[in-house]
Amino acid sequence: MIKARARAMASPTARFKAVTIERRDVGPHDVVVEISYAGVCHTDVHHARAEIGTTRYPIVPGHEIAGRVTQVGADVAKFVVGDRAGVGCLVDSCRECADCVAGRESYCRFGKVLTYNAIGRDGMVTLGGYSERIVVDEAFAVRIPDAIPLESAAPLMCAGITMYSPLRHWHAGPGKRVAIVGFGGLGHVGVQIASALGASITVINKTDEQMDDALRMGADEFWTTYDPRTYDNLASSFDLIISTVPVNYDLDVHLNLLAQDGTFVNLGVPEKPLSIDPYSLLTNRRSIAGSMSGGIPETQEMVDFCAENRIGAKAEVIEANYIDEAFNRVVAGDVRYRFVIDGSTIRAE
Amino acid sequence: MIKARARAMASPTARFKAVTIERRDVGPHDVVVEISYAGVCHTDVHHARAEIGTTRYPIVPGHEIAGRVTQVGADVAKFVVGDRAGVGCLVDSCRECADCVAGRESYCRFGKVLTYNAIGRDGMVTLGGYSERIVVDEAFAVRIPDAIPLESAAPLMCAGITMYSPLRHWHAGPGKRVAIVGFGGLGHVGVQIASALGASITVINKTDEQMDDALRMGADEFWTTYDPRTYDNLASSFDLIISTVPVNYDLDVHLNLLAQDGTFVNLGVPEKPLSIDPYSLLTNRRSIAGSMSGGIPETQEMVDFCAENRIGAKAEVIEANYIDEAFNRVVAGDVRYRFVIDGSTIRAE
Repeated sequence: MIKARARAMASPTARFKAVTIERRDVGPHDVVVEISYAGVCHTDVHHARAEIGTTRYPIVPGHEIAGRVTQVGADVAKFVVGDRAGVGCLVDSCRECADCVAGRESYCRFGKVLTYNAIGRDGMVTLGGYSERIVVDEAFAVRIPDAIPLESAAPLMCAGITMYSPLRHWHAGPGKRVAIVGFGGLGHVGVQIASALGASITVINKTDEQMDDALRMGADEFWTTYDPRTYDNLASSFDLIISTVPVNYDLDVHLNLLAQDGTFVNLGVPEKPLSIDPYSLLTNRRSIAGSMSGGIPETQEMVDFCAENRIGAKAEVIEANYIDEAFNRVVAGDVRYRFVIDGSTIRAE
Repeated sequence: MIKARARAMASPTARFKAVTIERRDVGPHDVVVEISYAGVCHTDVHHARAEIGTTRYPIVPGHEIAGRVTQVGADVAKFVVGDRAGVGCLVDSCRECADCVAGRESYCRFGKVLTYNAIGRDGMVTLGGYSERIVVDEAFAVRIPDAIPLESAAPLMCAGITMYSPLRHWHAGPGKRVAIVGFGGLGHVGVQIASALGASITVINKTDEQMDDALRMGADEFWTTYDPRTYDNLASSFDLIISTVPVNYDLDVHLNLLAQDGTFVNLGVPEKPLSIDPYSLLTNRRSIAGSMSGGIPETQEMVDFCAENRIGAKAEVIEANYIDEAFNRVVAGDVRYRFVIDGSTIRAE
């Protein structure tokens, strides 16, 4: 086994502690990634605090991983030592179902293994990126081009692909009117991607403090949820709305912003079920859809696209000792726009 | 003005009474349709009993109209006296918006005039098909080919187009796995249309009494909502599910029957909002959509398609004096599969 320093929570209310964890020995298809940066995703908070599903303690969160390959298994073809590599939400899947074969591993329902708080093929609980290194099958790591700083690349592995996949699937591009609801960790990457894809972009956000950033990153318009004119002026305006909001809110007033045959993609998992007036969908023949991250080939495509277009997450790099505070600030929405843990501060402990 | 005998309700709890109503004089683009048959749609019950929106009494329901043209205006080009004609949910629209220009009049939001219980361009409340005749702009009447008996054609004007439009829009055809939830007035027409389009068809219904009919009309499989195996066996099976159910029910167990990228089309307007677990949509990247009847060109296309494929509603022809009882039976789901009022019994009164 390979030892690694990490940060773990032992209970829903515990503080993070420095621990030493074990990673599996390097198999023929495995690579060891020394983690330079790990993003802090809102989902990490939900899992660590046992707010969704089942949490297996001690938990080491982190599924936005960027670093360098320091060791490769005998049969590894995609990486050599020294390569920059990223790991996202998945470290394995069944690899045989129609979704896996089509490169949609995030939709695999037979053997998907999440990067942390899941059970791996070896029966061990998976431990995530709040750690100095990870051992992962090369099939579930992507190459990170030199053009992206690693701290900007880490959040792309979840926030980036989670936005890129629906933007591509629902054809964001020239002539398409796209709205992004919520300008946070996901939204600020989504605006950059949608802009590079050539779509017209409107941001709808609960405060206007981020307006300048949004416009600079490529948004054409910025409206707030507290301005009643928003819902009149933008009625029936958009072909695609992507909601990054993780809490329950009034979906009907936002569905009403969709033009004929428009689609509202909900990425959030709020506490209560979605509530929708049937007329919100009947009018304009609208749809509401879900989208679950993206597969590995698409993640590589996204990282390459971001490198070509100089897109990256705006990271606030933090030390490992700051994670508890960062969690509180993520919940409060007080982050511009993604906390990214400096891996060297985990390693140093 | 043109007088017409009709059946009207004077309050939400009144019985239907024989009345004489006035139709507008025949304008240059108008036709007079002597109504041979008028279908009884569940929506008629909702409006007549003031269960949705605002009801203007006395109300003459009926938006599934089939009959013969007995008079034409000076500029009418589409019909001559003696032609068979149908009128559906709409008798006018703004005719200028993008939806109208594209032939999607049912999505017009600027000047759509419903066939009854609406305000026409002349400021008069519209009165529907439970009547001996109607005066309508030729643009909102369709030609009914001789191959369809008029009593089978009447329900096509609402039930038929309401099923045909989403089946076509979401590409029901060879290789597509389609489920229809609810085998009633809409469902039994939908099965015939989907079958003629070449889709594989599964019916999901609350009782199995209609199974033989469904299989005879083209369904490949028939499952009941009370059989727990339904939801296991059909999980992730369908590209398209069309729900004709007008009441609230568990959407999540039905969304779970959608395959990757499948769409659930909700046609019903239940009392309470739709409630959806976000994971029901995230899994398989599913969508739920609405669909509102169809436009006039598509209604003509549908009627022609039904004539070519010998598709018609299975009508239980009733006398006008039976409408109150028919309403009760519609609410109870006790009809195989559409009550159709014999217009001669309205005329005779």
